[in-house]
Amino acid sequence: MPIQVLGYAAQTSSSPLAPYTFERRDPREDDVVIDIEYCGVCHSDLHQARNDWGFSTFPIVPGHEIVGRVTQVGAKATKFKVGDLVGIGCMVDSCRTCSSCDAGLEQYCEEGNTGTYASVDRHDGRTTYGGYSKTIVCSEAFVLKVPENLDTKAVPPLLCAGITTWSPLRHWNIGSGSKVAVVGLGGLGHMAIKLAHALGAEVTLFTRSTDKEKDAKILGAHHVVLSTDKNQMKAVRNQFDLIIDTVPYNHDLKPYIPTLSLNGTIVLVGYLGEISTNTVPLIMGRKSVAGSLIGGIAETQELLDFCGKHNIVSDIEMIDMHSINDAYERMLKSDVKYRFVIDVKNFQA
Amino acid sequence: MPIQVLGYAAQTSSSPLAPYTFERRDPREDDVVIDIEYCGVCHSDLHQARNDWGFSTFPIVPGHEIVGRVTQVGAKATKFKVGDLVGIGCMVDSCRTCSSCDAGLEQYCEEGNTGTYASVDRHDGRTTYGGYSKTIVCSEAFVLKVPENLDTKAVPPLLCAGITTWSPLRHWNIGSGSKVAVVGLGGLGHMAIKLAHALGAEVTLFTRSTDKEKDAKILGAHHVVLSTDKNQMKAVRNQFDLIIDTVPYNHDLKPYIPTLSLNGTIVLVGYLGEISTNTVPLIMGRKSVAGSLIGGIAETQELLDFCGKHNIVSDIEMIDMHSINDAYERMLKSDVKYRFVIDVKNFQA
Ligand SMILES: [Zn+2]
Ligand SMILES: [Zn+2]
Ligand SMILES: [Zn+2]
Ligand SMILES: [Zn+2]
Repeated sequence: MPIQVLGYAAQTSSSPLAPYTFERRDPREDDVVIDIEYCGVCHSDLHQARNDWGFSTFPIVPGHEIVGRVTQVGAKATKFKVGDLVGIGCMVDSCRTCSSCDAGLEQYCEEGNTGTYASVDRHDGRTTYGGYSKTIVCSEAFVLKVPENLDTKAVPPLLCAGITTWSPLRHWNIGSGSKVAVVGLGGLGHMAIKLAHALGAEVTLFTRSTDKEKDAKILGAHHVVLSTDKNQMKAVRNQFDLIIDTVPYNHDLKPYIPTLSLNGTIVLVGYLGEISTNTVPLIMGRKSVAGSLIGGIAETQELLDFCGKHNIVSDIEMIDMHSINDAYERMLKSDVKYRFVIDVKNFQA
Repeated sequence: MPIQVLGYAAQTSSSPLAPYTFERRDPREDDVVIDIEYCGVCHSDLHQARNDWGFSTFPIVPGHEIVGRVTQVGAKATKFKVGDLVGIGCMVDSCRTCSSCDAGLEQYCEEGNTGTYASVDRHDGRTTYGGYSKTIVCSEAFVLKVPENLDTKAVPPLLCAGITTWSPLRHWNIGSGSKVAVVGLGGLGHMAIKLAHALGAEVTLFTRSTDKEKDAKILGAHHVVLSTDKNQMKAVRNQFDLIIDTVPYNHDLKPYIPTLSLNGTIVLVGYLGEISTNTVPLIMGRKSVAGSLIGGIAETQELLDFCGKHNIVSDIEMIDMHSINDAYERMLKSDVKYRFVIDVKNFQA
């Protein structure tokens, strides 16, 4: 029997989010049913709810940083048992047979992965609904085990902001002896600092305002460089093995590239659109401009295990579901340190 | 005693090249003296002779694709003996102590390498003069051994056009099973095709004119794709591990990036200046835009040995020194298959 679920949805691109009751599928053999306790609020939730990218479908129930407990297990689901603390990130399915999926890179599935919300389920063709809701049903293959020792309510952002920065740190082999810089101190940037620090790297934050310095150092940055100060930028030339650029809007890459070391990479994780740069510093130091998209399921589990071991969570501000529209307005002003998390546990109509 | 040398020089950025007699230094202990037999004509010779980049010094004696025979060996030079067939590429020195030099990446010397011409010798402060001349004096550390079995007059372009494409092929681990595409069929592009083919890769040429197809296939391309044809471009989406982009002027990268495979790289080797692209295909496939500059000395020797073994040389058109100004005009119109080489052996005033 389909499950009736209370959530929060936008009915059109111009309407605020509001209570909405909808159906979840009758669990399949490989599904688990999860009572959602907390759900993080990602910038892309807002972009999709307002159809900023032009491909949203309505009604839309956002939310892809989901933590909760298993309440039901499908006949052939073996990974979890009732009561397990689990998470779901940005994907709930993929083709599972292409070479990307075979390599554990489901985010790059050649057929396209199935997004946690506003996507189309590849079996029944129904729209997927996200974590701004009391319950979710998901194939166990896309469900992560969450360490019990962490502060549960601060775990959800690991599932999008965390993995989005973890995946490039791992892909470009960051560890002890590496020098990493982070551009932008928001949800993604603050996780990048924490994770790079925990991996043993020397971490620098590039910022355009001096008032970020104290916070950045508390998060684990060893240095803060004012990107508008030419002398400071000159002093860090040829330094960084990896720059994680989390800035979500069009911006000039040219000041950053000379700060990359020989063979260094600046990886863009926050901005979809046109960019321009100059080839001279790329050629003169075999440097790269790259992109990276979230991370695979096994890699996300690796991140959660790493965070459990190093006691890393996100810095969050807890809100109740009914405050989500206000939270979006504050998020647009970057007025949050560093991620809103919805208290779904106590959400009632 | 300094050596009097006959060469060809531009006296100003607006004067044609003409005979010019100048001094080479008295050989130092680690130097070898080389009678030049052949010198390739690189696009950058023309740019520098005309001061297109704004940093040329005059008089300028261009030429950094040099092949000749050793006539004299310094007291502490042990690598070569009189009569050896040798080559000099784009560099004649570097600091030899920085981490780049230590890693055999002298082209990326942190102090800047010493260019074969129009550069400043780091010991005596004198201007360096290139291979449009009868004799050159160079530290043996920057002199390469040239295989005797090759057609000597077609070897010079290996020392710039060859190594510029070889280095990225090797850095990005191209071999059997790899798919490589080349953008642009000139001096660099024709070497990229030959070398990628010989390394066992499946090679595609991107071109804007169908009349290149036959030539490209003779050079070793397995496929030719018309980059202005949307259907052909669609058919090669997500294919290439590496694209070597040899185009020497500003051009749109956007059509090429979707043809990269997951984790693929487009490496720019021919163009210095502004570029623009879109981050979406970079992010959606963890793709990179990179740059690469010539290659290190050990890597250049590796290339020459590889070419000796596989009998690879450049396709050239031989000219005499007095035709160099005409050759520049033809080069500007891409009217050469694929590199001019000056017959220095028979050059007389
Ligand atoms: Zn997100
Ligand atoms: Zn797949
Ligand atoms: Zn050259
Ligand atoms: Zn050096």
